[in-house]
Amino acid sequence: MKIKGKSYRTIWFDNNTVKIIDQTKLPHQFIIKDLKTSKDAINAIKTMEVRGAPLIGATAAYGLILSIIEKNDLSFLKKTSEDLISSRPTAINLKWAIDRMMKKLLGVNSNEILKIALEEAKAIVEEDVNFCKNIGTNGLKIIEEIANKKKGTVNILTHCNAGWLATIDWGTATSPIYHAHKKGIKVHVWVDETRPRNQGANLTSYELNEEGIPNTIIADNTGGILMQRGQVDMCIVGTDRTLSNGDVCNKIGTYLKALAAKDNNIPFYVALPSSTIDWKIKDHKKIPIEERNSEELSHVEGLDKENKLQKVLIYPQKSKAMNLAFDVTPAKYVTGLITEKGVCKASEQGLKELFK
Amino acid sequence: MKIKGKSYRTIWFDNNTVKIIDQTKLPHQFIIKDLKTSKDAINAIKTMEVRGAPLIGATAAYGLILSIIEKNDLSFLKKTSEDLISSRPTAINLKWAIDRMMKKLLGVNSNEILKIALEEAKAIVEEDVNFCKNIGTNGLKIIEEIANKKKGTVNILTHCNAGWLATIDWGTATSPIYHAHKKGIKVHVWVDETRPRNQGANLTSYELNEEGIPNTIIADNTGGILMQRGQVDMCIVGTDRTLSNGDVCNKIGTYLKALAAKDNNIPFYVALPSSTIDWKIKDHKKIPIEERNSEELSHVEGLDKENKLQKVLIYPQKSKAMNLAFDVTPAKYVTGLITEKGVCKASEQGLKELFK
Repeated sequence: MKIKGKSYRTIWFDNNTVKIIDQTKLPHQFIIKDLKTSKDAINAIKTMEVRGAPLIGATAAYGLILSIIEKNDLSFLKKTSEDLISSRPTAINLKWAIDRMMKKLLGVNSNEILKIALEEAKAIVEEDVNFCKNIGTNGLKIIEEIANKKKGTVNILTHCNAGWLATIDWGTATSPIYHAHKKGIKVHVWVDETRPRNQGANLTSYELNEEGIPNTIIADNTGGILMQRGQVDMCIVGTDRTLSNGDVCNKIGTYLKALAAKDNNIPFYVALPSSTIDWKIKDHKKIPIEERNSEELSHVEGLDKENKLQKVLIYPQKSKAMNLAFDVTPAKYVTGLITEKGVCKASEQGLKELFK
Repeated sequence: MKIKGKSYRTIWFDNNTVKIIDQTKLPHQFIIKDLKTSKDAINAIKTMEVRGAPLIGATAAYGLILSIIEKNDLSFLKKTSEDLISSRPTAINLKWAIDRMMKKLLGVNSNEILKIALEEAKAIVEEDVNFCKNIGTNGLKIIEEIANKKKGTVNILTHCNAGWLATIDWGTATSPIYHAHKKGIKVHVWVDETRPRNQGANLTSYELNEEGIPNTIIADNTGGILMQRGQVDMCIVGTDRTLSNGDVCNKIGTYLKALAAKDNNIPFYVALPSSTIDWKIKDHKKIPIEERNSEELSHVEGLDKENKLQKVLIYPQKSKAMNLAFDVTPAKYVTGLITEKGVCKASEQGLKELFK
């Protein structure tokens, strides 16, 4: 997708270097960053220079490549894969991508390993682009139906960033929106700012602006009354891990919006590539929920009057804070899952019918 | 209640001047501000130097006194009363206090009017202190019951600031908490930061700290998963206007927490003095919901590294934002109303039994 009119992906490989857009600097600075070592990749995931379940997966795959370039050694590769998996706990795509890469690489001749790793990483990336594109065409039908009934702008609420910046291209939750916009359907997006890191404001609103899609940032508290007032036609969010029973783990606060959607009879969709499905864990209480540094809550960065970046403390100096990064939306509050293979019910049966 | 060990009220009259704590400067600066004219009072309400339904009411009463001191003239007094009423639309206490004052003052001899106005404002203030104290003793019983069952710390979630800083003393939602703490019951408060103005963090956590009550600030997104995990025993919030059918208008985001409480079988209480009840409006859609400047969302103030206050832009420069200040929680999601006369169901019958 585009930034200042130029097409980008969120990650690419060039001259033994992995290139990423440093997402901690958006929206105030657009910086392309070089990852040269596996440690750089681990660090980029940990500090959220890259984030979003599918992009974390792709970065992990490239992290293994950097590891091979550094030191073509199996035990080093295994150590890197473990460090990558533990760099963030909640998104399942991280483990999925590493497992997929390692399956290809174990037992491979050391002369060939880099070439095979590059091919597999490229396959992961291209697959994600295609999956996200298909999520878009599948979700487009839902938006089209609402537009046909309503005969006016379709108001879509989204939480956090499940946009192209969270994937390689297109995004998950945003892909149906981009496809609708390209087809000339009038859409307007309510963007939850998504505290504490404000990925809704910093990333989703930013990328929608760059694609010319009308959007309005709101406090995370606001979605409820907008739904009560009939100002939301549908919700679409992404997910970091979806269980086989349809329970959806996503950015903290998603659950509250799903409850409000249910209370106001508004369809609540979750968009995901199949790499985000966890077929093993059956009980959502077993999903590891990341707790991040409370400074992400108590300190906020922005531009001062002189357009300089400043980080400021916004809480009382004596106060404690607690920063959980994800919550779980029970399947019963999810209208449907929009996947690369089609739309299904958020249930074991629904998922099994699509992914046999 | 106390700040740095010294007892304060939020508003008092001294030497023809109304004294307030400038709440826009908390928690970083503690400043007592003089209001010398009725315009000062109107401005203090508009800019939220004073806020919270009961405190807005008291400030309006004192605004009329300042008007009389400026110019002892009936038409000026009437104009001031209108300007005060329109200074903020949602909290009903504002109109309630003005109506109560004007009822006393109309037809009064100009020699006596200041004396009578001062007496009535004092009566409003003392009544609010007593009401909040009674809310505390009535709500205390609920906390005590939970503490007895649980035999451990009672975790209470609150939204925004319905603390003593929102009233004259004690607070509404916090009064049962202060009373429980004084009685030796172990309580811990989850404080929603309450975007966009962060009155939870800036005011509630601040005042709980000053009273030595354990509390943790969380993003507004976090309450849902804490409830799912069993880490919240009850919710208590305040209200800016409660309808006679029990529907509760309060700070934006309250509704989402009520939904989550319902979904997890957690009691959700609303604490209010009877001055906050609107006996007239029957349909919550008729409550005027204030829309404030979107800069309150896009700009955040805090302390920089050199301990200087800085305001920073946190949103993309091209982005639009929308800032609704209140939402409505339907009565069916409210476990009970904690009032100065006792606890009742959030229903017409419940309220009528207490307030015949």
